Amino acid sequence: MTSSIGERVQCEALLRKLVPVEEAVRHVRSGDVLAVSGFTKAGEPKAFLPALARHLAGLPDARISVYSGASLSEEVEAPLAPFIARRGPYMASAASRRLIHAGKMDYADAHLSHFARGLMYGFYGDIDLAVVEVSRIRPDGSVVLSASVGVSAEALARARAVVLEVNTAIPDFTGMHDIVLPPAPPTIGWPVPVTGVRDRIGLPYVLFDPSRVVAVVESRQPDFPVAFRAGGATCDAIAGHVLAFLGECRDRFGWHHWVPPLQSGVGNIANAVISGLARSPFQRLHFWTEVFQEGLLDLVADRDRFAGASASAMSLADTEPTRVEALIRAARGDLVLRPMWMSNNPEIITRLHVVAMNTPLEVDIYGHANSTHVGGSRVVNGLGGSGDFFRNAYLSVAHTPSIRTLRDGRTVSCVLPYVNHVDHTEHDIKCIVTEHGYATNFGIRSPRARAREIIDRCAHPHFRPLLHDYVTMAGDGDEPRLLAMDRLEGWWRDYDAACAAFPGEPGGAPHGH
Amino acid sequence: MTSSIGERVQCEALLRKLVPVEEAVRHVRSGDVLAVSGFTKAGEPKAFLPALARHLAGLPDARISVYSGASLSEEVEAPLAPFIARRGPYMASAASRRLIHAGKMDYADAHLSHFARGLMYGFYGDIDLAVVEVSRIRPDGSVVLSASVGVSAEALARARAVVLEVNTAIPDFTGMHDIVLPPAPPTIGWPVPVTGVRDRIGLPYVLFDPSRVVAVVESRQPDFPVAFRAGGATCDAIAGHVLAFLGECRDRFGWHHWVPPLQSGVGNIANAVISGLARSPFQRLHFWTEVFQEGLLDLVADRDRFAGASASAMSLADTEPTRVEALIRAARGDLVLRPMWMSNNPEIITRLHVVAMNTPLEVDIYGHANSTHVGGSRVVNGLGGSGDFFRNAYLSVAHTPSIRTLRDGRTVSCVLPYVNHVDHTEHDIKCIVTEHGYATNFGIRSPRARAREIIDRCAHPHFRPLLHDYVTMAGDGDEPRLLAMDRLEGWWRDYDAACAAFPGEPGGAPHGH
Repeated sequence: MTSSIGERVQCEALLRKLVPVEEAVRHVRSGDVLAVSGFTKAGEPKAFLPALARHLAGLPDARISVYSGASLSEEVEAPLAPFIARRGPYMASAASRRLIHAGKMDYADAHLSHFARGLMYGFYGDIDLAVVEVSRIRPDGSVVLSASVGVSAEALARARAVVLEVNTAIPDFTGMHDIVLPPAPPTIGWPVPVTGVRDRIGLPYVLFDPSRVVAVVESRQPDFPVAFRAGGATCDAIAGHVLAFLGECRDRFGWHHWVPPLQSGVGNIANAVISGLARSPFQRLHFWTEVFQEGLLDLVADRDRFAGASASAMSLADTEPTRVEALIRAARGDLVLRPMWMSNNPEIITRLHVVAMNTPLEVDIYGHANSTHVGGSRVVNGLGGSGDFFRNAYLSVAHTPSIRTLRDGRTVSCVLPYVNHVDHTEHDIKCIVTEHGYATNFGIRSPRARAREIIDRCAHPHFRPLLHDYVTMAGDGDEPRLLAMDRLEGWWRDYDAACAAFPGEPGGAPHGH
Repeated sequence: MTSSIGERVQCEALLRKLVPVEEAVRHVRSGDVLAVSGFTKAGEPKAFLPALARHLAGLPDARISVYSGASLSEEVEAPLAPFIARRGPYMASAASRRLIHAGKMDYADAHLSHFARGLMYGFYGDIDLAVVEVSRIRPDGSVVLSASVGVSAEALARARAVVLEVNTAIPDFTGMHDIVLPPAPPTIGWPVPVTGVRDRIGLPYVLFDPSRVVAVVESRQPDFPVAFRAGGATCDAIAGHVLAFLGECRDRFGWHHWVPPLQSGVGNIANAVISGLARSPFQRLHFWTEVFQEGLLDLVADRDRFAGASASAMSLADTEPTRVEALIRAARGDLVLRPMWMSNNPEIITRLHVVAMNTPLEVDIYGHANSTHVGGSRVVNGLGGSGDFFRNAYLSVAHTPSIRTLRDGRTVSCVLPYVNHVDHTEHDIKCIVTEHGYATNFGIRSPRARAREIIDRCAHPHFRPLLHDYVTMAGDGDEPRLLAMDRLEGWWRDYDAACAAFPGEPGGAPHGH
C-alpha cells in the first residue's frame, strides 16, 4: 500500500525540495497568513501542522492566521491553537473554541461558498503560505490532492509560497477530483456547466506555479477517523418523519420515479436518515453534498441504490489505507471530490433541485434556526455550508431532537419562541422535523399559523403549552414577538421551571450535528 | 398615442373574448387563487382588480388569494384588501397591512426569486386565474407584457384560466422583455446563459395556451406613478460614504476601469447614491436590479455613463404615456425587463459580481439586518429581493440613516444591540453605511471587533456610549449577547431615556426604503 516518496513525486525539480518537516516549518514567521488543506478532518497537512506548533512554541509571541476548507482534526488543531491569532472559516476544535471565547483568537465563520470566493476576490488579503496535502506530484509540478479539496486550489493559486505535504501512506487519489477555480473580478463569471452530480468540468489535478514551492515534506499519517455515531430511537423517529416528508413531496409535486439529489449533514441523525433511505422505496439515490461520509458506504455497494455522489471531502470512520483504496477503486467515476465553492455552489444546488438536510442547534416557532451560537454568545463550530444549502435547496429540511439534555442534567427545548442567533431565516427552511413529527412551510400561511403547527407537531409535548402561551402573550402583529421585558422575564422563568420539572425519558435526548 | 383595441389584439379568436370588465370579473368565485401581474406598481391589472373588488362586495363573505410579482399600487390593492384571505409574496399597502396585523389576512413574504420558482414547483398550489396586463396580443395568442414582468409568465403557464387586460393607453412594449420560465422538478435545470446585463436568452413575448383565456378586457389607465423622493443632507452624506466605499474597493481589489453592475433599492437614499454615481469617476455603469426607476433616467440620457440595465419592472414618477414611449424608444436594447426569477437570480447576481445596495429598517452591532418587521412583530412590506441580492452579491451594502424619528416625535437609533427580526445575517452584508461613515466586513475579525467599528463609525454619536455599554455588559463569548433579563431591561430603560433626551438635529432624520 505505502508508496515510496520517489513514486509519488514525479517532478524532479520538486523532489529536490524534499526536506524534513522540521526544516519546512521554518518558512513560517510570526504574522504569516496560512491557507491549509483540510475539510471535516480529511486531507489536512498532518505532518506539517503539528511540527509547526513545535516551531512556533520556540519563537517569542508567535501568532499566525490559519484559513482552512472546513474543520481540521483536534489532533492537528489543538497544538497549534495557542499560536493562532485569526481563524476561519470553520472549526470544530475545543482548544480553539476556548481561546475564541476568551478573546484570544479572532474567529469569523462564513458561508463556505463565500469564503472560497472571497479568497480569490482578495477579501481575505494576501496569503503568505499554502500548505496542502497531496497524494501525488505530477511531472509538471501540478498536484493530485487527497481526501478533500476544500480551498486547496484557491490556496495554491493565491499564496506567495507553497509547502506540499506528500502523503505516501494513503492511496493515490488520482481521478477522484474535479478542480476549477472561481472567477474573480474584474473577470466576469461564466455559467458553471454542471447538470449532474457526476459531471466533471475541470481538471483531475491542480495546476499552479511550482516555482512558488519552498518545500516538499513527506507524511505517513493516514487521516484521523471521524466518529460514526449510530442513532437511537430519537434518530430513527426523526429519520422516519424525514422519509414521510419526502414521500409526501413525491406525491404532491409529481416526482414519479425521480429522486432529488440529497445533501445531508454529518452526525447520528444524518446517519439514521441515510440508513432509512437505504431501506426506502426511493431508488437510484444521488448525493450533492459537502462530505462523503461513513454512512454512505453501504449505499455505494448497492448499485441499484447508488447513482453517484459529489462532495468536497471523504471523511470516514475507518481510514485504514487499504480500505480507503478499495473504496476509491469501487467509487471512482461515481464519486467526485470538488472545491468547496463548487460543492456548496448556490447555482448548482438550485439547478439540481437538491434536498438539503441539516441539524441546527435549535429552531424557533416561526421557523428561524440557530446553527452556531449556544445562548447567542458562544460559537460551537460555525455556519459551514448550512446556509449555502438551506437557502438554495429545492427542499430544505432542518431536523433536530425536540429536547436536549445539558451537561448539568437539565433538559431544554430545541423549539423556542425565538433563537438568540439567527443563521437561517423562516424563508430558508421548508420543513422542520423532530422525533414528534414534521411541519412544512409551503404556500401562504401566516407566521401565527405556522407557529401553531411547529409547536403542535415538532415541540416536545412537555413544552407545548408554554410555547402557545408565548404566542398569546406576544399579542398582535403578523409574527408576534413579546418585547415587554417584565412579561418576557416571567415567561423565561416559567420555562426554566418546566426544564427543571422535565420527566425522565427512556433513551434520553441525544443531540446530533 | 392611444391605440385602438383592434390594433393591440391581433388574434381574432381572442378579440372575440373581449368583454366589459364587469363581465370578466364574474369568472372569480370565492375561494379562488389569483396570480396577477404587477411589480412595484408597474404593469398591474388596473381595470380588472378594482372591478373585482366591486364584484366581490356583492357576494356573501367572498374571500380570495392574491399572488403578485411585488407590490401593487394602493389604488388597486386597498379596495380589494377586505376580500383577500391570503396574500404574497410582497405588498406595500396600508390597507392590507392593517388587515394582516388584525389577523384578518394571512400574509407570507418570500425571497422573490424563491416565490417565482415555488409557483412553478407547485409549492403554492393550483392557480385558478391569472390576470395579466399586456400591451399587445400577437396573432398566435402569445402576449407582449407591459411595464413589468414579475411572475406574469409563471402565472400564464400555471393558471387554469386567464384574463388578459390589454392596456391601449400605454405604449406597445414590444422588444423590452426577455421571457424564460424557471425549470421545475422533475426537470433538472440548466446553466442560465446570461453573462451581461443586456443579454437576452428567451423570447420577447410570453407563449402560453390561449385556449385558457376566458376573457379579454381593455384598460386605458396608465400606471400609477411612484413617488420620487429627493434626499437631503443625510441621504447625500450616505451616498458620499457609499461612493467612498466603492472607491476603496476599486483600489483594493484591482478593478481598474471596471465597475461592477449595480443593484439599488427604491427610495431617497438610493436616488442620492445614483445621483452621486452620475457625478463620480465611475464610467460605463451597468445595472442588474429589480426596478428601473425614475432616478436612473438622467443616466440613460448620458451615453458615456450608461451601459445598460436589467430589471423586472419600470416604475416611474411620471407615467404619462408619451414620456414612457420616448423612454422605451431611447432605451430599447439597453434596458431588458425580465421575470423576477431572472432579475433576482442568485446564479446571475454572483456571476456578474453585482454590488447590491439596500436600506433595511435597522441593523445591529454585529451586522445583522431587519428589513421587514418593526419591533419584531409587525411587518412593513416584506422581504422582497433584499435577500436575493445581499446574500449573492459580490459586495452587499446596507445603508440606513443612523437615527429615525418616530411619529410620536421620539428619535431612535437604527443601530441596535440586536434586531428583533433577522432577515439578513452578519454573513450576508459586507458594508454598513450611515450618514456618519461606513464599516466593512472583510477578512477575519472577531464579532466584537466588528461591533466596535460599526458603533464608532455608523451609530449616531448620541447612542455610541450606550451601545458600547451593551457589549461590555454582555460579557464573554465571541459574539456577546446579554441574556440576563434584569440587566437587559436596565439597558433598554437607559436607551429609552437616551431617545427621549435626543437633541434636535437640523434636517431631522428621514428614513428611506
